[in-house]
Amino acid sequence: MPPKFLARLATQFPSCLREKEDLIPYSFDGTATYRQMPAAVVFPTTTEEVSALLKLAGEASVPVVTRGAGTGLSGGSLPSEGSLVLCLTKMNRIIETDARNLTLLAEAGACTLEIAQAAEKAGLFYPPDPGSMKVSTIGGNVAENSGGLRGLKYGVTRDYVMGLEVVLATGEVMWTGNKCVKDVAGYTLRDLFIGSEGTLGIVTKVLLKLIPKPAARRTLLAIFNRMEDAAETVSSIVAEKIVPCTLEFLDSVTINCVEDYTHIGLPRDAAAVLLIETDGHPAAVAEEAEAMAALARKHGARSIQTAATPEEAAALSTARRSAFAALARVAPTTILEDATVPRSELVRMIAFIQQTGARHALKIGTFGHMGDGNLHPTFLTDERNAEEMHRVETAMKEIFDFAIQLGGTITGEHGVGLAKKNFLRAALGDLNVETMRKIKQAFDPANILNPGKIF
Amino acid sequence: MPPKFLARLATQFPSCLREKEDLIPYSFDGTATYRQMPAAVVFPTTTEEVSALLKLAGEASVPVVTRGAGTGLSGGSLPSEGSLVLCLTKMNRIIETDARNLTLLAEAGACTLEIAQAAEKAGLFYPPDPGSMKVSTIGGNVAENSGGLRGLKYGVTRDYVMGLEVVLATGEVMWTGNKCVKDVAGYTLRDLFIGSEGTLGIVTKVLLKLIPKPAARRTLLAIFNRMEDAAETVSSIVAEKIVPCTLEFLDSVTINCVEDYTHIGLPRDAAAVLLIETDGHPAAVAEEAEAMAALARKHGARSIQTAATPEEAAALSTARRSAFAALARVAPTTILEDATVPRSELVRMIAFIQQTGARHALKIGTFGHMGDGNLHPTFLTDERNAEEMHRVETAMKEIFDFAIQLGGTITGEHGVGLAKKNFLRAALGDLNVETMRKIKQAFDPANILNPGKIF
Repeated sequence: MPPKFLARLATQFPSCLREKEDLIPYSFDGTATYRQMPAAVVFPTTTEEVSALLKLAGEASVPVVTRGAGTGLSGGSLPSEGSLVLCLTKMNRIIETDARNLTLLAEAGACTLEIAQAAEKAGLFYPPDPGSMKVSTIGGNVAENSGGLRGLKYGVTRDYVMGLEVVLATGEVMWTGNKCVKDVAGYTLRDLFIGSEGTLGIVTKVLLKLIPKPAARRTLLAIFNRMEDAAETVSSIVAEKIVPCTLEFLDSVTINCVEDYTHIGLPRDAAAVLLIETDGHPAAVAEEAEAMAALARKHGARSIQTAATPEEAAALSTARRSAFAALARVAPTTILEDATVPRSELVRMIAFIQQTGARHALKIGTFGHMGDGNLHPTFLTDERNAEEMHRVETAMKEIFDFAIQLGGTITGEHGVGLAKKNFLRAALGDLNVETMRKIKQAFDPANILNPGKIF
Repeated sequence: MPPKFLARLATQFPSCLREKEDLIPYSFDGTATYRQMPAAVVFPTTTEEVSALLKLAGEASVPVVTRGAGTGLSGGSLPSEGSLVLCLTKMNRIIETDARNLTLLAEAGACTLEIAQAAEKAGLFYPPDPGSMKVSTIGGNVAENSGGLRGLKYGVTRDYVMGLEVVLATGEVMWTGNKCVKDVAGYTLRDLFIGSEGTLGIVTKVLLKLIPKPAARRTLLAIFNRMEDAAETVSSIVAEKIVPCTLEFLDSVTINCVEDYTHIGLPRDAAAVLLIETDGHPAAVAEEAEAMAALARKHGARSIQTAATPEEAAALSTARRSAFAALARVAPTTILEDATVPRSELVRMIAFIQQTGARHALKIGTFGHMGDGNLHPTFLTDERNAEEMHRVETAMKEIFDFAIQLGGTITGEHGVGLAKKNFLRAALGDLNVETMRKIKQAFDPANILNPGKIF
C-alpha cells in the first residue's frame, strides 16, 4: 500500500485500522484454512464515503475488499494481501418498511435477522434464512446470493432483491431496480451484481421484496435407519407435488455431534434425521404435514415427531440449525462444502460422499438442504496434518467432479470466492468463464474490486 | 447484404427467403407503426445451424435479428434494414418434461401454450401466461422477459428459467444454468441473457422450472362505477396481505370495446371492471375469494359475479384476455403502452392517464395488471394522421415521465426494443445505460446481434 495513499486514508478516515493486532480479526472469514492480512481496514458510514474511498483506491491502484460480518464460507470476503478492507457493518440502518408496496430498504451492513424482524413487525415475511443470519449482513447475503433452510419453497436471496444501490469501481453511484414488481427496461444489472462477490461493484443499499406472513406452520422430525429411506422420502414428497418450506437432513456423524452439543435427545443409532416444515393456510398445512408423515412412514421412518407448539418446533429446528456449530467443535479444522445436484440424483450423491470418506479414511459429517439437492459434506480434520489435508483435497475434488457429472454444481449457496475458484472451469467450461472475465473487465478494468476472487 | 454472403447463404440454406413479397410478413411484429425490411429470412432447425449462420454473418458483418412468432410489442424482433432474420419457429420441440426435478426443456421456437399444456399433462404448472401465449414462442418470452396475467402471485418468465443454451455472436454455443434449484457458481449469465432482446446472444434452448398445479381456483368479476374504487380495492387486497394470482382491470373505453367484440354482457356504463382470480388449496381459495369480494363491496363495487364452473371462469377471463384484440378493431392504429408504477401509486397513475388523454383529445383505453402496477394505456389512433400522431407522442412522453416520477418504469413486460429506446436514459440514467453498453460491447463488439435495439 503506497505511503501517500495511507497518509490520505488516515487523514480522511482517522478511525481506520492499520496496526497488525487490529487487522488480525479481519484476516479471515468463516472459511477454514484461509488467512490473508489486509493493509488497512476502514468503516465507512455513508455511500458518499464508500464512493470517496473507491476514488482514492482507484487513483492509487489499491485493491479493495468489501466485508460484512465475515461469515462467508468460500473466502469471498477474505482480504487480498495488502488490500484495503471496507467493512460495512456501520452502514446498518433499516431505512424503510413499505407495507403498501411490500418492500424494505436497508443499508448493506444491516443484519439479516434484524431485517427479518422488521418485516415481521409489519406483519410481513422475509424468507431467506442463511445459517449465519443472526449475524450476517444483507450486503453479504446479496454478494454471495445466500440460500438458507427455506429455499425449497421460497427461493434464495436473489428472489427477494428488487433494487440495489451500488458504488462502481470508478466511485460512481448507481441505482438499479425499483419498487415495481415488473420491470424490463434494459439488461438486468441488478441480477448481475447479485452473487458477484464484490468483484463488480460495492452494494451499499438493498431494496427487498417482502411477502405476507404464512398463517400456520407445522414442524416434523422423521428418524430413519437407512439414509436411502430418508432420500426416497424426499423424492416421494416432490413426486407427490408437495412443496414444504423446509426439507433438511442430518447424517449419523452429524446426529451424534449435534446430540453431544445440544442434548436434545436425538437417537444416536439413527442413520438419518429429516426435518420437515410446511407453512401456509392452516388447512393446507395440516393436510401436507399428514401426507408427508405418511410418506416418511411408507419409506421406513422408524419414528415421526410432530411439534405441538412453536417452542417444540423451535427445539426440533435446533437440531438442524446447530449442525455446523456442533461439527465445528469436534475437530480443529472444519471444512464445510456445498456440492449441489438435481434432486433426482440425491441418493447417488449422498452414497458417493459416504464412500469417498471411507475410501480416504476421512471423517465427513453431511447435512443440508435435501429438498434442494444442496448438501453440506463437512470434513472434520486438522489443517496442521499435511498428509490428512492432502487426502481431504483429493476427496473434495472427487466429490465436486461427481456432482458435476450428475449435472450439479460446485456451490449451491456459498459462492466461489477463493475456496472454489480452482473448480470453476471444470464446472462451467472455458467459454462461460471467459465470458464472465469479459464482464469483470468491463466493470473493473484495473481489477481493484476484490481481485483474485471467483477467477 | 454482400452478394458473396447471400450466395453462401442460398447454398447452405436453400429454403431461405429473399424475394420482397416473401419478406414482407417479416418486416413488422406486434408493434404498431414500425416496419423495416430484412434482406433475407432463414429458418434454422438446429443449434448447429444457428451457430453456422452466426459465423457466416460475423465474417460478412451482416446484422442478425432473431424472431419467434413476431408478437412482440416493443419492436424487439423488428428487422434492421438489410438484416438477416433468423426465424426460430422450426426449432419448436419440447425435448423433455422431467417430473422428478420439476423441469421442462424446450427449443426456443416452442410455443408457450404448448409448454403450458405439456406441463399440465405431467400434473404440473408453467405459470407465465403472456397475452400472446397461444402463438408466442418461449425464446421470445425469454428475450423480452414476458409477464402475463398471473405475475402478481407467480412472477414473470425470468422466475421460471433455470438454464439456457445460447449461441454467442462468435457462433460459439454456451450452456448456462442447470437442473439444480440452487447454484451460485460465478456471475449469472443466464439472468443477463433473459430480457436482453437478442442483443447479447441467441437463445436456442430453454430449461424451465415447473411447479405443482394448484388444486383449486376461483374467479370473480367486480364492477365499479368509479375507477378510484377499483384501485382502492386492489390496494386494500394487498394491505390485507392477500396475494391472488390475478388482479386485472379494464376501464370504460376498454369495457365497451370488449362488449362490442364479445357480447358477454359487460355493463357499458361501468367505469371499471376488476377480474380477480385466486388459486391454491381449496380452503385458502374459498377464504380469499370471500375476503376479496367483501373488500370490493366495501370499496363500492356495484356487483360481484363469482364463476360457478370452470367454463364460467373462462368466460369471465375472456373479458380481460380479449381486451387488446377488442381495442385493436376500433381504430386503424392501436399503440399499446406498458407504463408501470409501484402499487401504491396506481390511483395517481390511472388518473393521470385519463387526464392526459382528455388534454390531448385522444382516445385511450386502459387495461392491465392492476395488482402489479403494470398498466397498458392503449392509444386508439391512425398513423396516417400526422397531427394526431404528434399528439400521441406527446401524451406518451408525458405518461412515461410521470411514471418515472412516481418511481415507476417505462416498460413492465414488453421490453425496450425500438419503441422505448428513446425513453431509456430518462428512466435509468446515463450511468446505467453506459454500463449496459459496456456489456453489449463485451458480448458483441462488432454489433451484429439485433443492432439498434434497446440503445
